[in-house]
Amino acid sequence: MPHFIKKYSKKAGLSPGSLVHIGEKKIETIRIALINYDREQLLEKDLATIEDALPYRDTSPVTWINVDGLHEIAVIEKMGVHFGIHPLVLEDIVHTGQRPKAENFDDYIYVVLKMLDIDTAADHITAEQVSLVLGPHFLISFQEKEGDVFDNVRQRIRKTRGRIRMSGTDYLAYALMDAVVDHYFEILEKLGEKIEQLEEELLENPTPRILENIHHIKREMIFFRKQVWPLREVLNSLIKDPSDLIQESTHIFLRDVYDHTIQIIDTIESLRDVLSGLSDLYLSTVSNRMNEVMKVLTIIATIFIPLTFIAGIYGMNFEFMPELKWRWSYPVLWILLIVIFSAMLLWFKKRRWL
Amino acid sequence: MPHFIKKYSKKAGLSPGSLVHIGEKKIETIRIALINYDREQLLEKDLATIEDALPYRDTSPVTWINVDGLHEIAVIEKMGVHFGIHPLVLEDIVHTGQRPKAENFDDYIYVVLKMLDIDTAADHITAEQVSLVLGPHFLISFQEKEGDVFDNVRQRIRKTRGRIRMSGTDYLAYALMDAVVDHYFEILEKLGEKIEQLEEELLENPTPRILENIHHIKREMIFFRKQVWPLREVLNSLIKDPSDLIQESTHIFLRDVYDHTIQIIDTIESLRDVLSGLSDLYLSTVSNRMNEVMKVLTIIATIFIPLTFIAGIYGMNFEFMPELKWRWSYPVLWILLIVIFSAMLLWFKKRRWL
Amino acid sequence: MPHFIKKYSKKAGLSPGSLVHIGEKKIETIRIALINYDREQLLEKDLATIEDALPYRDTSPVTWINVDGLHEIAVIEKMGVHFGIHPLVLEDIVHTGQRPKAENFDDYIYVVLKMLDIDTAADHITAEQVSLVLGPHFLISFQEKEGDVFDNVRQRIRKTRGRIRMSGTDYLAYALMDAVVDHYFEILEKLGEKIEQLEEELLENPTPRILENIHHIKREMIFFRKQVWPLREVLNSLIKDPSDLIQESTHIFLRDVYDHTIQIIDTIESLRDVLSGLSDLYLSTVSNRMNEVMKVLTIIATIFIPLTFIAGIYGMNFEFMPELKWRWSYPVLWILLIVIFSAMLLWFKKRRWL
Amino acid sequence: MPHFIKKYSKKAGLSPGSLVHIGEKKIETIRIALINYDREQLLEKDLATIEDALPYRDTSPVTWINVDGLHEIAVIEKMGVHFGIHPLVLEDIVHTGQRPKAENFDDYIYVVLKMLDIDTAADHITAEQVSLVLGPHFLISFQEKEGDVFDNVRQRIRKTRGRIRMSGTDYLAYALMDAVVDHYFEILEKLGEKIEQLEEELLENPTPRILENIHHIKREMIFFRKQVWPLREVLNSLIKDPSDLIQESTHIFLRDVYDHTIQIIDTIESLRDVLSGLSDLYLSTVSNRMNEVMKVLTIIATIFIPLTFIAGIYGMNFEFMPELKWRWSYPVLWILLIVIFSAMLLWFKKRRWL
Amino acid sequence: MPHFIKKYSKKAGLSPGSLVHIGEKKIETIRIALINYDREQLLEKDLATIEDALPYRDTSPVTWINVDGLHEIAVIEKMGVHFGIHPLVLEDIVHTGQRPKAENFDDYIYVVLKMLDIDTAADHITAEQVSLVLGPHFLISFQEKEGDVFDNVRQRIRKTRGRIRMSGTDYLAYALMDAVVDHYFEILEKLGEKIEQLEEELLENPTPRILENIHHIKREMIFFRKQVWPLREVLNSLIKDPSDLIQESTHIFLRDVYDHTIQIIDTIESLRDVLSGLSDLYLSTVSNRMNEVMKVLTIIATIFIPLTFIAGIYGMNFEFMPELKWRWSYPVLWILLIVIFSAMLLWFKKRRWL
Repeated sequence: MPHFIKKYSKKAGLSPGSLVHIGEKKIETIRIALINYDREQLLEKDLATIEDALPYRDTSPVTWINVDGLHEIAVIEKMGVHFGIHPLVLEDIVHTGQRPKAENFDDYIYVVLKMLDIDTAADHITAEQVSLVLGPHFLISFQEKEGDVFDNVRQRIRKTRGRIRMSGTDYLAYALMDAVVDHYFEILEKLGEKIEQLEEELLENPTPRILENIHHIKREMIFFRKQVWPLREVLNSLIKDPSDLIQESTHIFLRDVYDHTIQIIDTIESLRDVLSGLSDLYLSTVSNRMNEVMKVLTIIATIFIPLTFIAGIYGMNFEFMPELKWRWSYPVLWILLIVIFSAMLLWFKKRRWL
Repeated sequence: MPHFIKKYSKKAGLSPGSLVHIGEKKIETIRIALINYDREQLLEKDLATIEDALPYRDTSPVTWINVDGLHEIAVIEKMGVHFGIHPLVLEDIVHTGQRPKAENFDDYIYVVLKMLDIDTAADHITAEQVSLVLGPHFLISFQEKEGDVFDNVRQRIRKTRGRIRMSGTDYLAYALMDAVVDHYFEILEKLGEKIEQLEEELLENPTPRILENIHHIKREMIFFRKQVWPLREVLNSLIKDPSDLIQESTHIFLRDVYDHTIQIIDTIESLRDVLSGLSDLYLSTVSNRMNEVMKVLTIIATIFIPLTFIAGIYGMNFEFMPELKWRWSYPVLWILLIVIFSAMLLWFKKRRWL
Repeated sequence: MPHFIKKYSKKAGLSPGSLVHIGEKKIETIRIALINYDREQLLEKDLATIEDALPYRDTSPVTWINVDGLHEIAVIEKMGVHFGIHPLVLEDIVHTGQRPKAENFDDYIYVVLKMLDIDTAADHITAEQVSLVLGPHFLISFQEKEGDVFDNVRQRIRKTRGRIRMSGTDYLAYALMDAVVDHYFEILEKLGEKIEQLEEELLENPTPRILENIHHIKREMIFFRKQVWPLREVLNSLIKDPSDLIQESTHIFLRDVYDHTIQIIDTIESLRDVLSGLSDLYLSTVSNRMNEVMKVLTIIATIFIPLTFIAGIYGMNFEFMPELKWRWSYPVLWILLIVIFSAMLLWFKKRRWL
Repeated sequence: MPHFIKKYSKKAGLSPGSLVHIGEKKIETIRIALINYDREQLLEKDLATIEDALPYRDTSPVTWINVDGLHEIAVIEKMGVHFGIHPLVLEDIVHTGQRPKAENFDDYIYVVLKMLDIDTAADHITAEQVSLVLGPHFLISFQEKEGDVFDNVRQRIRKTRGRIRMSGTDYLAYALMDAVVDHYFEILEKLGEKIEQLEEELLENPTPRILENIHHIKREMIFFRKQVWPLREVLNSLIKDPSDLIQESTHIFLRDVYDHTIQIIDTIESLRDVLSGLSDLYLSTVSNRMNEVMKVLTIIATIFIPLTFIAGIYGMNFEFMPELKWRWSYPVLWILLIVIFSAMLLWFKKRRWL
Repeated sequence: MPHFIKKYSKKAGLSPGSLVHIGEKKIETIRIALINYDREQLLEKDLATIEDALPYRDTSPVTWINVDGLHEIAVIEKMGVHFGIHPLVLEDIVHTGQRPKAENFDDYIYVVLKMLDIDTAADHITAEQVSLVLGPHFLISFQEKEGDVFDNVRQRIRKTRGRIRMSGTDYLAYALMDAVVDHYFEILEKLGEKIEQLEEELLENPTPRILENIHHIKREMIFFRKQVWPLREVLNSLIKDPSDLIQESTHIFLRDVYDHTIQIIDTIESLRDVLSGLSDLYLSTVSNRMNEVMKVLTIIATIFIPLTFIAGIYGMNFEFMPELKWRWSYPVLWILLIVIFSAMLLWFKKRRWL
């Protein structure tokens, strides 16, 4: 089961702002990568310590610092100090059970997203928390592990002429969010295909395994929906944000991601309706099959039990049973049996059981 | 299954504004038709290249350019350049998985709709994306394939005196949207008739096939609803649009389409309620039938199994069974059997099973 | 089935404002009746042509023109011209598939309502469209056929001292809407009685016929709700209407009709809840009965099948079966049978099946 | 069934403001009781005619007139004249089918409530309509019959030092509403206890009677909810009322009743969820029991039917059946029967049916 | 069953503001503990009488008075007098059936919360009412019994450098609310684990006990949701509170608790969806099992009943049955039986019952 609840108990009772990494440790060492670019120049390097990033903090138009791994609390804490990030935000960054949200702290905007993936081995959706801290000249992104979803954005930055090279940190933040949301569509496609396949199997030959699969996908859908639903509000608040951190020209791009989010939510709802229709169909089909089984039993039993009774009567050993001695008893009995048999068949036919 | 999800994966990772045609290629070549008209004059011609449309772009009161086919990216891109359309809009035009929406870009309004049709062969609803770009003097409509829904609008333009000849591009946009929405009613009618028919069959003779049909229509309804529901918001935003692109006098017409949309949504909801009532009725009927089948089995088995047991007793071959030698055993036994039989019948009658 | 969808296809593709009568033709000829009144005087007459109404249009305080029958398009069209009614409104008047709504056109307010009735023969609710055009000095009401719901209003006008004689067209409009809404209560009462009756029958003796009746009333409820639900909004918009057409003093009366509408909607919802409770109760009762039937079968079969087997054993014809020759076999066997029988009964008793 | 619909038909077609008493006549004669009090003095008397109340109407700080019984239309009408109450309000007072509401008429506020009670004989909730007319110096309360819910308020007035003696009519109105709402809690408690009891019975021994009880309480809940739900809005509108009739200092008390109402609605919803859980549990339990019954039948039948067949074979009377003559046939057969019997038992064990 | 309803009846009819302790008496004697602190100093002491707290009321920056036990009405009443708390608030404090709410009384803010716990013995959630009265220099917290949830806050106060020592009463109130909400997560975790466990058991071996457990957790969820749901509104109103009692800098912390509350509600909803999926899965599994049972019965009965009939025929004792004397009857009959048996098996195979 995709865990609906992170282990909060680890930090119950600590004072707010205490940094405790909650979630699985997904990689061994933290990796900090810096990309510094503007229209003309581009600099990429891996950082050993966070202090190496300081010279780039305020000077150049866009500095993107990507952090993979959240378990080294000390590093995160130092970043908080150097970039002026509120302790509560740091707490949220390392506690991977956040709900997607956006908060404006005047100096920077803090955005939490969920990057989703399908773990094909266990056949369920996994969620990784992505945090963005968007300042005027820097954008810090935090991921739980190295991933390839942001690689496309890196590629686009490396090309000299992309719009991304001519825009600020807000456009970079948009590009990252867009990459995450675009990835949702792929998951949705896979789920959609599975549902289609289940439906075909169900119409052909309903087995209990299908039922378990329906249940499984239903739960994945609940999980998916829970991760995507709040995003709507997040994007809406970013679009309506009055601060200077997000420029007017970026709004149309955020609106585009917003539209995608709505589309995903819409589709999730439709698929859930389809799934619950499949459940109903399964139950009805089982009922139908049971009905059929019962009919076969009833027809056979109802015809042969009375006939067997008649045979039983003439199997009795009474000394004085006149029929037993009569010459034509046996053929007459056969006629009787055949008449009863046929009458029963007719009756079943009339009731449309045959 | 009407595909709830378009293949987004084709373009995952591309930068925003990259034009990729997503959807089926429904016709061979793009066809661009221009109609230029005002109160006095009317000009219709097919264009070889989009540049041929430029002279008409700003001069005449209304220029309607209709594009059938979305797969020639280069053509669409050139239109974007010549008519000043934002790359994100172009992206949405060729990506046929959009949700209906309206966006105001000051210079023009972009509207996406879904034209629905019933594919009678496969017996399901198909959706075609229709995009409208409404400028001050031009209106460009994009369709996936040539269709006949807009023919009525063309006819009305050809008549000299219609209101359409005296109005601007906003009225033309209204006329096209109205044509699309009017077509929804026809689909609704057909679905309504099918449901009525299913209901009659169900009350007469419920077969498993009916169940599959109910499920099928339910899913078509989910698909239909998904396409129409956002339209409500689209029309509302157009009515409340403060820009000059839509004149005051057109509002009443948009309100009319809005009313139609609400009516369609209302009816879809009512039909869904009816359908779910049918599902319940089916299940109950199956239960009832099962009950009846079981009663027949129980009555027959309950009456004859004890009688057969009695016959079995006197079929035993013990040497010392006094009854076997008694003169009246056989008739007394028959009386006994008949008494038991009648008592059982009475008991069933009392329990209202007969 | 009360038709949820009117035949829209008849007018698909026509230009907006084209008058086509959609709906059943319920009477032979249009009948136009005029009532002109103020505090002192009262004039009633039937009109041959609509032009006869013109002298009364603007002069006298209140002129009520009631039109029964909507199929003579020419007459409706002339009224449109003489009273300055917008073509889209005329279209709505003759197209009987409208959703209840109110629209303010500065010079007049257009209101659509549904007058409901129970067709006792077919045992379902029928809807008739009533349109009101409320001008400063005239009120035109359109009905599909002559009805008696408005007769009470006519009676009240004929009495000299009623408040209606001292008020304007807005109060008259209120009186007509009130008459329509009051009639809803009667239908609700009849449906409520039917549901109560069904419930009693269900608790006493659940038959499949009850199930069909529940389904039938459920669908009537869906239809009823669909007609009444939008009325709430209609009345609300009339109460909040800022124009001079509705005077301040009439607001309290409209609020009264509004309260009635809310009450009807509330009661419909409650009755739907009750109905769905009945459905559940029916299903559970059927399950219970099935359970009982199965228990009887199981008890009888479980007791007698093993006993019959034992009798069968001693009915075998082996030459060497020592028991057959033993003197006390038969009575001992009877004791065995009775012991088994009693043990089984005890076991069933312990399991509370008896 | 608690009647969801009052007999509206009695007054269909009457002009608005016509006073017709709709509802049961619950007491023989109207009783009018007056209490006039301020900080220092207190006067209680029963009035023969309503005119006796006039001297107290405007002079003293608080005059509370309580009317028990609504069927003497003439009395109510006179009160309307003397206290300046709008005919529509009088109509609502005597028509006991109102939905709870509050209306401000500048000179007075009109509030309708439902006083609920449990009719222990018929075991259902009864509703009595309570109307309050709150003027600057008087408060008139109308009840259908004499009740004891208001007695506590009377007691508090009789004590010299209560806050009630120092406050105006608005506080008195609050006290009466509070008494009504407090009484709801008692009903809720009783319903809650019944549900708890049902749950225990259900888990112990589910009988069809429990099902009927669940259905019964469900319907009472629908009725209860229908009466209480609108109260929320009523109290909210009173709290937000800008007029002088309700003083600032009373708002906190009204907010207290409002909180109680929300609490009641919350609890009703929770109990409805619990009830629907019980329904489901019942159905599942019945299914489970059926399953168990079927298993017993299947095990017995599946074991003994083949055995009986074998016994039947050797009960045949063919002259040439070699086994019949063989010396060890009978013991070998017994071994065979026991082997089959044991194999079957093992198979059932493996399938976890035993 | 977690009691959804407190015993209101105890105080029906009392005047508002009468203090009656409603709820269980959970500890023997009231315990009043005072903590007085600012940046530099810290004073902790237990108070014998509430008057001992007066010197600290207004002077020092933060005075936290924690009261365990609500049953000594006199003490609560005196606190009301000394700290100027409205009688209605006092009433709410001692009446433990409140719904979570926040009310601003200018001089102080009154907040009610529910502290939840799992009673592991009875295996259900218990709720304890926590009231906070937040003044400019004091904060009074009322609990029903001594608990350890607030201990962490005490620890943090004792440390010299915590943010809590540098902040006012509003931050203390936040810290207490945060402690309560954090504790919800632990309960949620435990419920989540139980559900996961149930799911595994269900997929492996569905027993009726699982059904009862599902029902049990469902009801706990209803109870949980009822306690947490209103908290959302409470926190929202505190964040938007315009008064000086809550400082700007505390808003971000309150927003953090708000986020946690939303997350809890979200998770509760998801878990309820999962639970209702489990119910459905259980029902379907039971249906499936029944189906399987029925199939076994039907196959065995359908095969052997006709065969037994044939054996019965030749067990009859007629004198004139030519087959009985024929030499090859017996082997031919065996061949016949085997053919019938095989044909039946094939038929079942074809129908996929085997």
